[in-house]
Amino acid sequence: MQRLSKQCLSIIQTRPQNSHKGTFGRTVLVGGNAQFGGAIMMSAEACVNAGSGLTTVMTDPSNHPALHARMPEAMTVDWNDKELCDSVLDSADVILIGPGLGEDKKSQDLLSYIFQKQKEDQLLVIDGSAITLFAKGNEQLPYPTQTIFTPHQMEWQRLSGVKIADQTEENNQKEQKKLQATIVLKSHHTEIYSNQGRFQNPLGNPGMATGGTGDTLAGIISGFLAQFPDTVDATNAAVYLHSYIADQLAHDNYVVLPTKISQALPYWMKKFEH
Amino acid sequence: MQRLSKQCLSIIQTRPQNSHKGTFGRTVLVGGNAQFGGAIMMSAEACVNAGSGLTTVMTDPSNHPALHARMPEAMTVDWNDKELCDSVLDSADVILIGPGLGEDKKSQDLLSYIFQKQKEDQLLVIDGSAITLFAKGNEQLPYPTQTIFTPHQMEWQRLSGVKIADQTEENNQKEQKKLQATIVLKSHHTEIYSNQGRFQNPLGNPGMATGGTGDTLAGIISGFLAQFPDTVDATNAAVYLHSYIADQLAHDNYVVLPTKISQALPYWMKKFEH
Amino acid sequence: MQRLSKQCLSIIQTRPQNSHKGTFGRTVLVGGNAQFGGAIMMSAEACVNAGSGLTTVMTDPSNHPALHARMPEAMTVDWNDKELCDSVLDSADVILIGPGLGEDKKSQDLLSYIFQKQKEDQLLVIDGSAITLFAKGNEQLPYPTQTIFTPHQMEWQRLSGVKIADQTEENNQKEQKKLQATIVLKSHHTEIYSNQGRFQNPLGNPGMATGGTGDTLAGIISGFLAQFPDTVDATNAAVYLHSYIADQLAHDNYVVLPTKISQALPYWMKKFEH
Amino acid sequence: MQRLSKQCLSIIQTRPQNSHKGTFGRTVLVGGNAQFGGAIMMSAEACVNAGSGLTTVMTDPSNHPALHARMPEAMTVDWNDKELCDSVLDSADVILIGPGLGEDKKSQDLLSYIFQKQKEDQLLVIDGSAITLFAKGNEQLPYPTQTIFTPHQMEWQRLSGVKIADQTEENNQKEQKKLQATIVLKSHHTEIYSNQGRFQNPLGNPGMATGGTGDTLAGIISGFLAQFPDTVDATNAAVYLHSYIADQLAHDNYVVLPTKISQALPYWMKKFEH
Repeated sequence: MQRLSKQCLSIIQTRPQNSHKGTFGRTVLVGGNAQFGGAIMMSAEACVNAGSGLTTVMTDPSNHPALHARMPEAMTVDWNDKELCDSVLDSADVILIGPGLGEDKKSQDLLSYIFQKQKEDQLLVIDGSAITLFAKGNEQLPYPTQTIFTPHQMEWQRLSGVKIADQTEENNQKEQKKLQATIVLKSHHTEIYSNQGRFQNPLGNPGMATGGTGDTLAGIISGFLAQFPDTVDATNAAVYLHSYIADQLAHDNYVVLPTKISQALPYWMKKFEH
Repeated sequence: MQRLSKQCLSIIQTRPQNSHKGTFGRTVLVGGNAQFGGAIMMSAEACVNAGSGLTTVMTDPSNHPALHARMPEAMTVDWNDKELCDSVLDSADVILIGPGLGEDKKSQDLLSYIFQKQKEDQLLVIDGSAITLFAKGNEQLPYPTQTIFTPHQMEWQRLSGVKIADQTEENNQKEQKKLQATIVLKSHHTEIYSNQGRFQNPLGNPGMATGGTGDTLAGIISGFLAQFPDTVDATNAAVYLHSYIADQLAHDNYVVLPTKISQALPYWMKKFEH
Repeated sequence: MQRLSKQCLSIIQTRPQNSHKGTFGRTVLVGGNAQFGGAIMMSAEACVNAGSGLTTVMTDPSNHPALHARMPEAMTVDWNDKELCDSVLDSADVILIGPGLGEDKKSQDLLSYIFQKQKEDQLLVIDGSAITLFAKGNEQLPYPTQTIFTPHQMEWQRLSGVKIADQTEENNQKEQKKLQATIVLKSHHTEIYSNQGRFQNPLGNPGMATGGTGDTLAGIISGFLAQFPDTVDATNAAVYLHSYIADQLAHDNYVVLPTKISQALPYWMKKFEH
Repeated sequence: MQRLSKQCLSIIQTRPQNSHKGTFGRTVLVGGNAQFGGAIMMSAEACVNAGSGLTTVMTDPSNHPALHARMPEAMTVDWNDKELCDSVLDSADVILIGPGLGEDKKSQDLLSYIFQKQKEDQLLVIDGSAITLFAKGNEQLPYPTQTIFTPHQMEWQRLSGVKIADQTEENNQKEQKKLQATIVLKSHHTEIYSNQGRFQNPLGNPGMATGGTGDTLAGIISGFLAQFPDTVDATNAAVYLHSYIADQLAHDNYVVLPTKISQALPYWMKKFEH
């Protein structure tokens, strides 16, 4: 297993002068039901600050006011408006589904809908309750190698069938091979399992053990996938930078609020610009 | 009566490396009707910043947008959704009821509901209008020694029957013995009465005499109870740190806005990390 | 006409140690219809930061989310809930009516209602569209000497009948004598006409010429009236400090956003604490 | 084509002492349907910070809470309230239509309504989807020389019929002559085509390639038109300053969030005050 280092941030290249928002990708974030809206807001805040060219949040309309109040840079779409959803998804480069999605019939329908819509050139990040829904086993991944799962250990157990105690590097890698997707297995030291290899994140701190840390990571991964070319490289860089910034914040903060990580992204991405 | 000192903050220990949000407790905050939503928002802001692993706010749905806009890290639950409330309460470590709860039939029903749901291993903080409702005397505390009341002097009069003028250490202690709960009696110099002894907070300043200071304290107490082992130690530390931070802010502020105290918690908890 | 100086800020005294939020007054702000909610939010932000012990906003319920999102320290009351309004007004020390109130039937009814409810020991600040409504002449001030009007020049013309070109010190003073209320005549250099004398504010700058400056001033006046004893002294200090802070901000800002003035109040009140 | 330089900011003059909010113009911003509210919020944030005396946002009422939460200084009007819209437009100095307007029947009706209402002394900025709607060709500009279009290259193709590859200085100028309006053609180095000449903005950076940058520019242009006398001078200064600030922010930020540009306007306008 390869230990990630600052080297993995070298994908953060100086942007070409002649660029526009389309150059840095269109990301669509699907989540946030009427109860759990905060999760998708944190993903959106992460995704915009991570540099996605255009970020659209497909969510319950009750979440629009708070989303706009926090981050007007993200666009919103009522997830009940099929026609609008179709058109937004059509032009997406990256789709994230899961944060605050819930686990009811509506959530399941949305996951099926996204699976139907995903196209050959679109990446799909599956996070949070969408992993649990998928783990029920009624769906097939349309494009496994374009899929990134971001489970914590219990979600990985549901998804792979491997119990937490048995989640060894070997067992995890075996399951990744079956799934063919990239797996970001979140824990004390997050591990990435992919067709291109296995990676471990040496960074991170216990101040991150608070609600929203995962939603934020999912947003950064999505934003990086939207603008940087290689899926595994982008995922690794997102995981590493998320923890790196949190470690910086932890020097002065007993708890590291996830939205503080997002707000610090533009600064640290500049510092690491190659 | 023991005078609290910085020593009481020694419970703020370096967090174990191998931890996750469950390690630091699940706190459920119940309050905020359609009129008085700000109170529970301030409790939530305090609780998240105080380091509760997961914070869920059970409130009137009209409060969800503002809650998410201020603090997406806190989850929200519509307090009319019984099934969801049941499941969220089931996994709680600490429950706070009261800030902005109101005093009508709905408020009373919610208090009764929480009393029904509380389990043997859950702590319950009773604040604000929930104290007044309880003082009407129709309810029994399910687990008195797991209960923390946070009355100001008039609420303590309602709860204990002891008039403000008669609220001497002796009389207060006598009533605490009857109730068996921990009492945080808020005043100029807040006093804590408990089965483990009596404590006085030497800190605090008149810039704190503004709406929301108590809601914020209730949130910090709840967040500390969720992550630190001893109930009285956690309560003492919360009371002390709340005033300590307010005293720091008062050097430069004639009025100390409660939300500024909450926002400063991660910084000061780091400073006092043992 | 007496020129105000820093001396007028000497009413900002060190607060007594043994105080609570009731010590610093209860202020009720009435305004903000479904269209013009921002005005009353700015008044609330000013009032809380100015040190009012408890601030309650009586407004259209569509304004509650944004009010809470900006300033959870202010309580909200749906102005259609008569019973709750009655009880909140009953315990008020200061009432402000006008910011974003509108000029329709509902607005007029609310003004009449406040006139009905005002008690002998309550101060009433009349601002913005409430001045225009009152100027229509169908109402009598219940307690003229407890009333403070905060008109700009056109509103003063409507209220007094004196055309802007004729608004000389002498004419203004004559009208104040008839009204018996305190008049804060807002202009380039705001003037205060009262039963205790005439005062001119030497401060202020053209960066303040933006929407919301008046709403903010009305909030500061109300907050000062709630906690400082003399009506004219409190009004003078509010007018002076509002401009003083704006002048500080103008060193670095071409436009002075009113909410920036409010946010700087605790700092400058501390600096001027006597 | 004249290259813009700092010289173009010399219109940012010290404001006259004896001024009031009317002195700096009334701006009405029309946009933000139930889905795309964030765009008009960013325009409003830009417009207020750019110094427009009074800023009113005519929008879907679902956007009011977030607008107020972010920027209470901007007033809101429900765009379904014809009577109120009529009166607000009547006193406008500058009207902006487009950000988040959408492209449906309602959007088209609003554009037609604005064309009906525009008066001889009012400037009209047409941005975003309003350009696409206008390009359909069913409408005539009421006052071409008082109109400013702010298309990106694809919108300019729709408006002028000139394909992106053919958008040379000569071709663009020819189309501007036909339209008689001022054209702000947004790209890597934005160009301004007007009856007074052609100008190129040498500033800007790829960190600006994110959603909302154009909405923010439209807000600054509108705010500058409201307070500075010459249309082309005001437009040039807005374009230049928008990029200048973004370039300052880019020293420390890989991505330049549009709302950060707006928030920095008062500071930089002060620095460039002549």
